[in-house]
Amino acid sequence: MIDSIAILAPGLLGGSVAMAARHYGAAGRITLWARRPEVRLKLRGQPWCDAVADLPEDAVRDASLVIVCSPVDQIIPLVRQIAPALKSGAIVTDVGSVKGEICRQGAASVVGKGIFIGSHPMAGSEKTGWEHGRANLFAGRTTFVTPLPETDPRAAEQVAAFWTALESEVASVAPDVHDEIVANISHLPQVIASCLCATLAKRNIGWRNFAGGGLRDTTRIAGSDPKLWKTILEQNRDEVLRALRAYQDELHGMERALANCDWFEVQAIMERGRAYREQFRPIP
Amino acid sequence: MIDSIAILAPGLLGGSVAMAARHYGAAGRITLWARRPEVRLKLRGQPWCDAVADLPEDAVRDASLVIVCSPVDQIIPLVRQIAPALKSGAIVTDVGSVKGEICRQGAASVVGKGIFIGSHPMAGSEKTGWEHGRANLFAGRTTFVTPLPETDPRAAEQVAAFWTALESEVASVAPDVHDEIVANISHLPQVIASCLCATLAKRNIGWRNFAGGGLRDTTRIAGSDPKLWKTILEQNRDEVLRALRAYQDELHGMERALANCDWFEVQAIMERGRAYREQFRPIP
Repeated sequence: MIDSIAILAPGLLGGSVAMAARHYGAAGRITLWARRPEVRLKLRGQPWCDAVADLPEDAVRDASLVIVCSPVDQIIPLVRQIAPALKSGAIVTDVGSVKGEICRQGAASVVGKGIFIGSHPMAGSEKTGWEHGRANLFAGRTTFVTPLPETDPRAAEQVAAFWTALESEVASVAPDVHDEIVANISHLPQVIASCLCATLAKRNIGWRNFAGGGLRDTTRIAGSDPKLWKTILEQNRDEVLRALRAYQDELHGMERALANCDWFEVQAIMERGRAYREQFRPIP
Repeated sequence: MIDSIAILAPGLLGGSVAMAARHYGAAGRITLWARRPEVRLKLRGQPWCDAVADLPEDAVRDASLVIVCSPVDQIIPLVRQIAPALKSGAIVTDVGSVKGEICRQGAASVVGKGIFIGSHPMAGSEKTGWEHGRANLFAGRTTFVTPLPETDPRAAEQVAAFWTALESEVASVAPDVHDEIVANISHLPQVIASCLCATLAKRNIGWRNFAGGGLRDTTRIAGSDPKLWKTILEQNRDEVLRALRAYQDELHGMERALANCDWFEVQAIMERGRAYREQFRPIP
């Protein structure tokens, strides 16, 4: 158990971290800070919140672990703002979907005060806001922990232990490896789902009333916040482009097979897809 | 209520039709026929099955409504086989995912004996087999009923009434219009999901262990039966190609926006996608 944690800018993920930390007894004191006063007011009444600070600097002053939960483009500004107020040796992490730049700048921002180690829980929802959070959001899900080569391994272990305490499955990888992985397994699916809906929107809008389970599931994440995703794609542009182009090649192969009535190839592509899909690790 | 129905080649859909017909009291006597003797044996014990015939001709002899539930490439051969045994004026329908050719050939096959009217319930699962069926599979889901211009409207009304009795939402459209719609809202999502998995399969296989809910949902239908889908794509090739090419254009627009760092356009595509997705009719 960590004696004291601070959660900054809690949305769906930050709220869930607080709920889970309380539920699983992963932290003693839980302090939160939110940018908007009306959110701070509401947080004060929550059983998984011991204190709410009016300033991020005040929230982190006694914390051994700080978890920055803001959108990716606001993580580094927030880390820079709190750096001078950190307890000596404090560990700072985040929950951002992109890690390369954030980890390098985060580490540089807290030099001499604390240690920055990136985190990225592969959990979430197309919904936003801490009100939609839940204590078991991370259970059975992967959380990436992304230390730099020069990061103190004991600190990385503490971050891994925190997520493990929330019943998440920790995978430690270098920040740039993380960005390549999520470009493929998270950012590419988002682009695909959004573009599918954008395509259908140009056709007959009424057709969506006929949507079966297949279209519903395939496009669920198209309901996600475009502004948030624009920032994620911005920060991971090169890897996302690489993944998108590989996907376009595959689609082009399917188009060619259909155009040529090469039904053997059509079925072969679908067989490869099914073989991959069937081996997904089951979620408890 | 229809006095007597026959369900031929029950899989997930056919089994569910039988269960639903019994549950909602939509049919009096329910007779089934399955190709494999071991399936016929198992069907005999089911409470939603009054009789099991050894031959499809015997199954349909007294039926006022025949529902052919075989894979799309076997529907017309089966309709031709049963046509001579049909009760005069019997209505024959199917549950195939493609309608144009099937409706034209189906109608021609039963001329002078009965009336063929296509159906396509937008319900199902990546699972197959009547064992996975359920009585409420069609509830709140669209079922297309696709009469030809020359089809007796009273017969079309009876088919619509049958699906309505199973609590499905009936949409009557011409067979070719149906094929255009499902190419976009069903066959295209299938191709997209299969190709996404086929793309990822070429990268690091281990990455799938990190899959979050987004990838899981987006690719669920990639687990569907490739042989079945090959046949569906074969029968609806032209419309699927048109839909796939429109989608490729949209993806190409996204690729260009990412490559040009046109973040305004990236967000605009995602906004269009979200606006479309948010207006899906809720499923009860």
